Amino acid sequence: MNIREESLQKHYEWNGKIEVVAKAKVNDSKSLSLAYTPGVAEPCLEIQKDYNKSYELTRRNNLVAVITDGSAVLGLGDIGPEAGMPVMEGKCVLFKEFGDVDAFPLCVRTKDVDEFVQTVYNISGSFGGINLEDISAPRCFEIEEKLKKMCDIPIFHDDQHGTAVVVSAALINATKIIGKDLGECKAVINGSGAAGTAIAKLLMTLGLKDVILCDRTGAIYEGRENLNASKAEIAKVTNRGMVKGGLKDAIVGTDIFIGVSAPGVLTEEMIKTMHKDPIVLAMANPTPEIMPDEAKAAGAKIVGTGRSDFPNQINNVVAFPGIFRGALDVRASAITENMKIAAAYAIASLVDDDKLNEDYILPYAFDERIKDTVANAVAEAARKDGVARI
Amino acid sequence: MNIREESLQKHYEWNGKIEVVAKAKVNDSKSLSLAYTPGVAEPCLEIQKDYNKSYELTRRNNLVAVITDGSAVLGLGDIGPEAGMPVMEGKCVLFKEFGDVDAFPLCVRTKDVDEFVQTVYNISGSFGGINLEDISAPRCFEIEEKLKKMCDIPIFHDDQHGTAVVVSAALINATKIIGKDLGECKAVINGSGAAGTAIAKLLMTLGLKDVILCDRTGAIYEGRENLNASKAEIAKVTNRGMVKGGLKDAIVGTDIFIGVSAPGVLTEEMIKTMHKDPIVLAMANPTPEIMPDEAKAAGAKIVGTGRSDFPNQINNVVAFPGIFRGALDVRASAITENMKIAAAYAIASLVDDDKLNEDYILPYAFDERIKDTVANAVAEAARKDGVARI
Repeated sequence: MNIREESLQKHYEWNGKIEVVAKAKVNDSKSLSLAYTPGVAEPCLEIQKDYNKSYELTRRNNLVAVITDGSAVLGLGDIGPEAGMPVMEGKCVLFKEFGDVDAFPLCVRTKDVDEFVQTVYNISGSFGGINLEDISAPRCFEIEEKLKKMCDIPIFHDDQHGTAVVVSAALINATKIIGKDLGECKAVINGSGAAGTAIAKLLMTLGLKDVILCDRTGAIYEGRENLNASKAEIAKVTNRGMVKGGLKDAIVGTDIFIGVSAPGVLTEEMIKTMHKDPIVLAMANPTPEIMPDEAKAAGAKIVGTGRSDFPNQINNVVAFPGIFRGALDVRASAITENMKIAAAYAIASLVDDDKLNEDYILPYAFDERIKDTVANAVAEAARKDGVARI
Repeated sequence: MNIREESLQKHYEWNGKIEVVAKAKVNDSKSLSLAYTPGVAEPCLEIQKDYNKSYELTRRNNLVAVITDGSAVLGLGDIGPEAGMPVMEGKCVLFKEFGDVDAFPLCVRTKDVDEFVQTVYNISGSFGGINLEDISAPRCFEIEEKLKKMCDIPIFHDDQHGTAVVVSAALINATKIIGKDLGECKAVINGSGAAGTAIAKLLMTLGLKDVILCDRTGAIYEGRENLNASKAEIAKVTNRGMVKGGLKDAIVGTDIFIGVSAPGVLTEEMIKTMHKDPIVLAMANPTPEIMPDEAKAAGAKIVGTGRSDFPNQINNVVAFPGIFRGALDVRASAITENMKIAAAYAIASLVDDDKLNEDYILPYAFDERIKDTVANAVAEAARKDGVARI
C-alpha cells in the first residue's frame, strides 16, 4: 500500500482530523448557569463596552481560520471547496501540533473575488487570524490585498508567504556555506504563481537586487505580452536586465535557482551555466524540477527539495505555526514584511554554525525549538512595527 | 458575588470555552505525510469524485456551526457580533456536553439579510448542520427560509424551533395531568417574536385549532394595522375568532398561557378568566411574566418558567443537542416539522407516567437518557420524511 492509499484508509478511520471540545465543563445546574445563561450575559456586556475584551473572554485569542475556495489544492488544481477540506483539516492539525494554535477549517463556495472577500470579512470577528490556503493565482493576490485593508486581524496566504519565509531561511544559511553575501546573489525563480511571486518579493526585501521570474512562456520582463496584472507589477521591479527567452536563457550566470513549477524542467546543462557553487531549490511536488543527485552531478553545491526523503526539505511547517503563534501572542493586527523576515532569520538561526553543512541548512520539522524561537522573533517584530496590541 | 459576576470571572479564567484539538496526531515524518502532504491528496480526490465522501473523510459528519449576527442576544438586544460570542461559545459547549456534537461559533458582521444568507451559504459546505442563534425577528424568519432553500444541510433557528419543541413537550405532558386533549385546548401566546411565532406554528401542527398570538399592541388578528410580514402571515391561521384587545381580552377562556415576553405582564386577575385548571408557561428571563406562587394562587394548575430554581424549567438544552445528534446521525438534509414533533414526543416520553406530576412535566436537563432518545426519534422521522442520506 503506498502512502496515498494508506492516507485514505487513515482518513476513513479518523472520520475527521480535528475535533471541537469544551474547555468549560457543564455537569450541573450551577456550571450551566456560569457557562451559559444567565451568567453569560456579563461577558457579553463587557465585550460590548470594550471590543478588545473579545480576546480575553472568547477563544479568538488563540484561533485561526484556515480558509480555501478549493481552486488550487496541492498540485491537484481546482477540485472544489469540499474536496479541499482534507488539506485544510490537515493544516489545522499542524497548527495545533506545531504551534499550539487552535485552527478551524472553512471552505467557501464562490470563485468570485469580491464575494469571497466579503464572506471572509463578515466572519473575521470570530478569529484572531486568517490563513488563506490553496487559492489560485492571480486571484489570491487580489483577495489577500482586499482582506488586509478591511480586516483588523492578520491575513496570511501561506502558499505565498510561508513558502517565501522558508526559502529565505534556506538561502540565508546556504549562502553562508558558499561564502556569498545573499544580497549580492542573482536568483532565477521558475514558476510565477502564488509562491514564486511572493518569494521574489521577499528576496528583494532581503536585499537581492537581481531576481528573474519565469513562467511557462519564459522570463518575465517589463512590457512582455500576456502578463496578468500581478505579473505586470512584479515585472517592474524584477529582471532589470530585461533578459528574454526561456529558463535556459534566464538561468545563465545566476547563483540561485528556485523552482516552484513542474517535474524535470531543470536540466544538468542549465545548472552548468550558473555561477560557481550554485544553490538549487527544486520544490515541485512530489517530483522536483531536477533530482538531487543529477543537480549535484551538474555542479550544484547545495540542493533542497520539498521532499522529506532528501536532505534540506523546504517545508512550510517550520514557518506558519510559529508565525501565527507569535502574531496571536501579541494580538497582532497584521503580519508585516518585518515579521516575515524575522521569522526567516529565526528559522535559519536554529541551525548552529558548527552543524551547518550542505545537507543541513534548515532545522528539521520536528525540532522542538522552532515554535518559541519563531514566535518570539515575530512578536518582537510586531511590536517594533506597531501592529502588536498587547 | 452574584452569578453574572462569577460567570465573568470564570470567562477570564477559561480564556475561551471551546478548543479545537487534533484527532490525527503528527509526531514523525510518516504521520505528517499521512495527515498532510503527500498522502492527503487521495481523500481530496475521493471527495472530488463523490461529494458525499466529505461526510466520511472530513469532520463535517459531526460538525454544526452556531451562527449569530449579534442582533438579539439573550435579553440584551443588539449588542453586536463579537459581543454575542460568549453565548455562541456557550451553546457550542452545550452541543458537545449534551449531544456529543462538535459545534463551532461564528459571528457575522452584517445586518443585511441577503448578505448574511450568502455568507452562511458560502461556508455551509464546511458543516453538517447550521444552528442560527440570537438573530432578531422578523429578519430571522427570512434568513432561515432563504437558507433552507439554498443549503443541503439542516438549518435550525434554535430560538424559534428549539423553544417550540420544548414547549410542545411540556404541553403534551401537562395536558395529560389535567386530563385534556391537547388538540382541543385553546392557547394564548404573549410575545410574537421568533419564539412566539414558532410555538404557534408547531402547536397548530400538533393539532391545536385555537391559538391567539399577542404582541405589545395586543391580540394579532387578520387585517390588524401595524403587522409586519411575518405577523400578517401568522394572522391568517391564528385567532380565527378575530378576538381584539389586549392580553386581558385574549386570555379569556383559554386553557394555556405561553409567555415569551416581559416580566410581570400576566396578572392573577387574567389567570382567573382562563378555563378551569389552566397551564401557565411564563418564560420571560430572568423574571417571568408572573411568579409561580402568584400563578398558583390565581388557580393555575401547572406552572413552568425558564428558571432552574423553580419546578418545570422550559430549557432548550433538552432539545437541540438531541435534535442535531439525530440529524447528523443520518446526515439529514433538513430538519422537518415531523422531526421536531418527534423530538417533542420523545422529550415528553422521558417523564414516566407514574412519576408525572404538576411539578415534573419535563425531564431534567441532566437526564442522561435525553440525547439518545431524542436522537433516535429524530433520525427515524428523518428517514420517514426522506431527508436522511444514510
